[in-house]
Amino acid sequence: VNAEAPLNLAEYEAAAAALVPKAAFDYVAGGAGDEVTLRENRAAFDRWRVLPRVLTGAGEPRLATSVLGTEASMPVLVAPSAFHKLVHPDGELASAGAARRAGIVYTMSTAASYPIEAVAPRAGAWWFQLYVYRDRAITRELVARAEAAGASALVVTVDTPIVGRREADERNRFSLPFGVTFANFDRPEQREMPANAEGSGLATYVQFESVLRWSDLDWLASITRLPVVPKGILAPDDARLALEHGARGIVVSNHGGRQLDSAVAALDALPAIAAAVDGRCELLLDGGVRRGVDVLKALALGARAVTIGRPIHWGLAVGGEDGLVRLLELLRAEIALALQLSGLDDVAQVTRSLVLPTGPLSA
Amino acid sequence: VNAEAPLNLAEYEAAAAALVPKAAFDYVAGGAGDEVTLRENRAAFDRWRVLPRVLTGAGEPRLATSVLGTEASMPVLVAPSAFHKLVHPDGELASAGAARRAGIVYTMSTAASYPIEAVAPRAGAWWFQLYVYRDRAITRELVARAEAAGASALVVTVDTPIVGRREADERNRFSLPFGVTFANFDRPEQREMPANAEGSGLATYVQFESVLRWSDLDWLASITRLPVVPKGILAPDDARLALEHGARGIVVSNHGGRQLDSAVAALDALPAIAAAVDGRCELLLDGGVRRGVDVLKALALGARAVTIGRPIHWGLAVGGEDGLVRLLELLRAEIALALQLSGLDDVAQVTRSLVLPTGPLSA
Amino acid sequence: VNAEAPLNLAEYEAAAAALVPKAAFDYVAGGAGDEVTLRENRAAFDRWRVLPRVLTGAGEPRLATSVLGTEASMPVLVAPSAFHKLVHPDGELASAGAARRAGIVYTMSTAASYPIEAVAPRAGAWWFQLYVYRDRAITRELVARAEAAGASALVVTVDTPIVGRREADERNRFSLPFGVTFANFDRPEQREMPANAEGSGLATYVQFESVLRWSDLDWLASITRLPVVPKGILAPDDARLALEHGARGIVVSNHGGRQLDSAVAALDALPAIAAAVDGRCELLLDGGVRRGVDVLKALALGARAVTIGRPIHWGLAVGGEDGLVRLLELLRAEIALALQLSGLDDVAQVTRSLVLPTGPLSA
Amino acid sequence: VNAEAPLNLAEYEAAAAALVPKAAFDYVAGGAGDEVTLRENRAAFDRWRVLPRVLTGAGEPRLATSVLGTEASMPVLVAPSAFHKLVHPDGELASAGAARRAGIVYTMSTAASYPIEAVAPRAGAWWFQLYVYRDRAITRELVARAEAAGASALVVTVDTPIVGRREADERNRFSLPFGVTFANFDRPEQREMPANAEGSGLATYVQFESVLRWSDLDWLASITRLPVVPKGILAPDDARLALEHGARGIVVSNHGGRQLDSAVAALDALPAIAAAVDGRCELLLDGGVRRGVDVLKALALGARAVTIGRPIHWGLAVGGEDGLVRLLELLRAEIALALQLSGLDDVAQVTRSLVLPTGPLSA
Repeated sequence: VNAEAPLNLAEYEAAAAALVPKAAFDYVAGGAGDEVTLRENRAAFDRWRVLPRVLTGAGEPRLATSVLGTEASMPVLVAPSAFHKLVHPDGELASAGAARRAGIVYTMSTAASYPIEAVAPRAGAWWFQLYVYRDRAITRELVARAEAAGASALVVTVDTPIVGRREADERNRFSLPFGVTFANFDRPEQREMPANAEGSGLATYVQFESVLRWSDLDWLASITRLPVVPKGILAPDDARLALEHGARGIVVSNHGGRQLDSAVAALDALPAIAAAVDGRCELLLDGGVRRGVDVLKALALGARAVTIGRPIHWGLAVGGEDGLVRLLELLRAEIALALQLSGLDDVAQVTRSLVLPTGPLSA
Repeated sequence: VNAEAPLNLAEYEAAAAALVPKAAFDYVAGGAGDEVTLRENRAAFDRWRVLPRVLTGAGEPRLATSVLGTEASMPVLVAPSAFHKLVHPDGELASAGAARRAGIVYTMSTAASYPIEAVAPRAGAWWFQLYVYRDRAITRELVARAEAAGASALVVTVDTPIVGRREADERNRFSLPFGVTFANFDRPEQREMPANAEGSGLATYVQFESVLRWSDLDWLASITRLPVVPKGILAPDDARLALEHGARGIVVSNHGGRQLDSAVAALDALPAIAAAVDGRCELLLDGGVRRGVDVLKALALGARAVTIGRPIHWGLAVGGEDGLVRLLELLRAEIALALQLSGLDDVAQVTRSLVLPTGPLSA
Repeated sequence: VNAEAPLNLAEYEAAAAALVPKAAFDYVAGGAGDEVTLRENRAAFDRWRVLPRVLTGAGEPRLATSVLGTEASMPVLVAPSAFHKLVHPDGELASAGAARRAGIVYTMSTAASYPIEAVAPRAGAWWFQLYVYRDRAITRELVARAEAAGASALVVTVDTPIVGRREADERNRFSLPFGVTFANFDRPEQREMPANAEGSGLATYVQFESVLRWSDLDWLASITRLPVVPKGILAPDDARLALEHGARGIVVSNHGGRQLDSAVAALDALPAIAAAVDGRCELLLDGGVRRGVDVLKALALGARAVTIGRPIHWGLAVGGEDGLVRLLELLRAEIALALQLSGLDDVAQVTRSLVLPTGPLSA
Repeated sequence: VNAEAPLNLAEYEAAAAALVPKAAFDYVAGGAGDEVTLRENRAAFDRWRVLPRVLTGAGEPRLATSVLGTEASMPVLVAPSAFHKLVHPDGELASAGAARRAGIVYTMSTAASYPIEAVAPRAGAWWFQLYVYRDRAITRELVARAEAAGASALVVTVDTPIVGRREADERNRFSLPFGVTFANFDRPEQREMPANAEGSGLATYVQFESVLRWSDLDWLASITRLPVVPKGILAPDDARLALEHGARGIVVSNHGGRQLDSAVAALDALPAIAAAVDGRCELLLDGGVRRGVDVLKALALGARAVTIGRPIHWGLAVGGEDGLVRLLELLRAEIALALQLSGLDDVAQVTRSLVLPTGPLSA
């Protein structure tokens, strides 16, 4: 691996592993339980092959698209993930800046290590990811701050009534290092993780609402003018319910394999959700995307775009904002190449027929 | 692995392997033949994924259930297994005590290393596991003792007309160490295994009835007031016969892969048995459960509860009664977490739709 | 591995590997090409699981059966294989003797390293395996000698118009060591392999008929009073043709993966052949049997009995005739155990319903 | 591995790896991206088994066939591949000569390291592989030169609007070594790769036409009297279009896994293309052929013949023209053996029924 110029996202990950303290790396890289779902998120892409077309007259690849009406230079969003400072001191300032420079939508995590108001000016178009807190006043205030700072959508995480068990964190007795905090919160006890926190310390003081209802989604929609996008849906019936409750988009996700281990892979869940939604809202696929061709597979199976989470950290770790820009441009080039080699020149041309299950193509 | 506080059942097993003499560990851990069925019991769980639901309003997870009318704090029973003294001097005294403290049903093995009358007072609700012996007087006496000591069901092992070949035991020339005996039997030659026993010595002096008939089940039912639960059924037709012969419950089991190597995995057999039984009796799934989410899979596929065998030994080995309580609480926490992350708050809500075969979810 | 008392056939193989010169071991153990078919012969057994029955009243296992009307103590035959002297000086004298002592049918190979007349008196019931030679007089003479010596059936190998390429033999520049000859042939140039034979030397002087026709089978039937059993049939249509040409039995075989690499596994071919033959002749399954339960699987899928080839060599290598008797008794005990644990007490009770494809049992 | 006389193509590859500089070896051996498609090209062959027939009266194997009307001694062609000088100084002079001596069709690559006019006299029947260049005058001139030199068909690569990313080349900073050039081009800047070329330097100065249309195929057909054979088709609909645009043959190919990684394996694509084409043109299977039996599988699934690419380099590397002749004769012998052991004596007899999917043969 060439740490200065990794050739692909896997090399970025390897380079990051050498640069980031083990406990922080494990926190980002790991999954829940036996990491079955973490691996399945990747394996699901291998269950599909691409059937390229030739002599189509396809010209320069055009990757530009829109997500929920926001223009994006490619069908990739920065997934929300916590504590970018864990891997680089510039943290979210750098990741937001990289997304802006790459022309893609940035999703800011509630659990960012810089506050909304500091990160927003660095970003281009950005969405805000929200957990629903027990204290609805906190929730309401976060929404108001996100709106005020210019967020254009509200991504509501619905798969975390309780934080999953990531055993590597417990093994490492992981806690936030000095200087990394829940920067969006005022009170010190909200912001800092006690040094002697046992186990996966994070779970001990993030006061999520553990009893979530569809009416909570209605409530959220009622307190914001932003489109609401539930994140963490895998069941087709839940996708239908989301539509009934006004979802403008859906992030098909198992939280990167960090919540319910053994949950269905995100890509495996996508086709049935696409059938259920039938074009009535946009779908984002979250989980396992590591190659440009993965993006095309997700689009073929029904996604409007994909989100990437862990690779954001690898880009930051390797070179801060510039490193992440390089990683995003690498991914962009891979998508463009895969598109062109598929005989297409616009991501909008990707349809279900681009992919087929691995194995003999039936006549 | 942190031997003091293993994070999951696999770590308990690893810790136990370091604490227990190899021959005893192999006796507990091993399976018959090439251990195909032993591995399949685990692999069968990997053939299913969970499809979690969100925003369901599920609150605190309630794991309490009943098995054959007996209340249990979670849908897990202690499976019958022989010679708990092999891994800890307190043996069944400790395992029964741990089950009581955990609020779950304890199944006492005929081949216990402490006698019924010593173990029963330590247990909460408990069942007695019975082999049918050639000498029916012995059988009758065991039943009478179990009834007198307070057993609330009779689990009859029906898959052991002869003991399977566990080659590791033969390789180790395994015999019971000094102080570990078939404590439920009076005569010394029944209780002790000759020191020079060749091969899998156990087989040489356990005088099971090798010709078993459904009429034997009828006979057993006729000599006891306890509900009779055959253990070791894999064929749907046998499940139907069991119902006809008055079974109140059925343990779907291949004896932990210790009898017929290459027998179908217990979880693989479960759905068809559930279809055959169609709710007319309760099903217990035995074999391969190592994670909380495994319990949910078994419930989704038709089990009322699961039993765990080998992990009982790992808990005992690591810390006696307290160690086993910790293991059981760990498993309970995993079930609760998996339930909550599935969008449910009661094990009674688990239905077939919670799981789907591994692979793309069909639309 | 305990070389004195291996616990299973795999241990016999390992013990033999340590005792037999590498080139001879490779000659026996190896397969053609990439050994795909050799491995598939084993893997095919793993595609099936057994569904044992319980409480059937099954008593002592009875393994006795008949093959082509000949009584046999179990549904296992010694497959024809060349040059038993390669692994033990007593060669076929020992293997025939062991088969007699075990009460099973011995199939003598044309390529035996002792002559028919020497081996026959050691055997109990025995069959003669024949290659058709270019020189029909040789063929005719071999048949006459086999008849005279007491063979009760003629197994005609039909899958060897030319000898397959076993690259290990070429790599080892394998040739028959001093004292090991085609003992059934008179002339020195027929009997001995030139010391400087290049590559797989055997192929250079075995003058098989390379153009074989169904009419050759008719011709063979016309020159013998023995039942003719073609060996090496995999296609159902060939099984039908064999019946039309008077075959009394069929050996479903790919020559132990030694002929056409990538040929279908023998067990994979069996069910379709059984359907084609529909009971009109007996089927023998050859290839991959290493465990007692494998025998039951073959019977369930349509075989009357199985033949074992390479294990004969391992038994001989470990202990000559006595060693092979021990191996055969080990296998017998495994069959008996598997039968009993399946709830049966007679191999004649094995039916298709005993097995099911690996994976969840459909309701 | 015996470097002097490798026993199979895999051994030739291993021997070549020891002889060829790593960067050149990697250039030839490698594939795009994660090499998923490269591996799948091989794995696809393992999804099929052969069902040999017996007693068919098949005599000496006849491998002779024709491709597009050209006689060939076996159904194997030399695939076009670049820069044979990378592995042997005689380069295409040797490979063309070997093909002539083996009696098979040679496909000359545009990117040959000897010019058309030097290579053609060494070849027997040969085809010319063409990329369409931005400068149509170059394209036209190449076609004219190929015609003048005696090519009998024009293979047009249609899967390379842009060169795929082969990361090993980037890692190795691969560039053409001194003396290896695009020998078919006049101007130095066309011929030589700059020594300091970054990454996969080839991509930087091969001026392919990146916008390819079916009308380009029409145009090509209009400027040549040779039959036009598009290479790189995987989709059945493209095969139909190729027919409509006058294709006389089709090379079913994913460019040896060097273009779109994750593209369907060539053999997996073949059956559906054969169904689409329905005998209206000849199909060549390119990708993954390493054994004689692979050729039969490709023929059974619809190919007229196969092409081999990388093995050409291994043969050259090991022994120049003579080495490649030996490799080709080895492959021929393997095809003949597989044919004969399948009960056939002419490649024209191979039909779909020769193969079946790996697994139990359905009744």
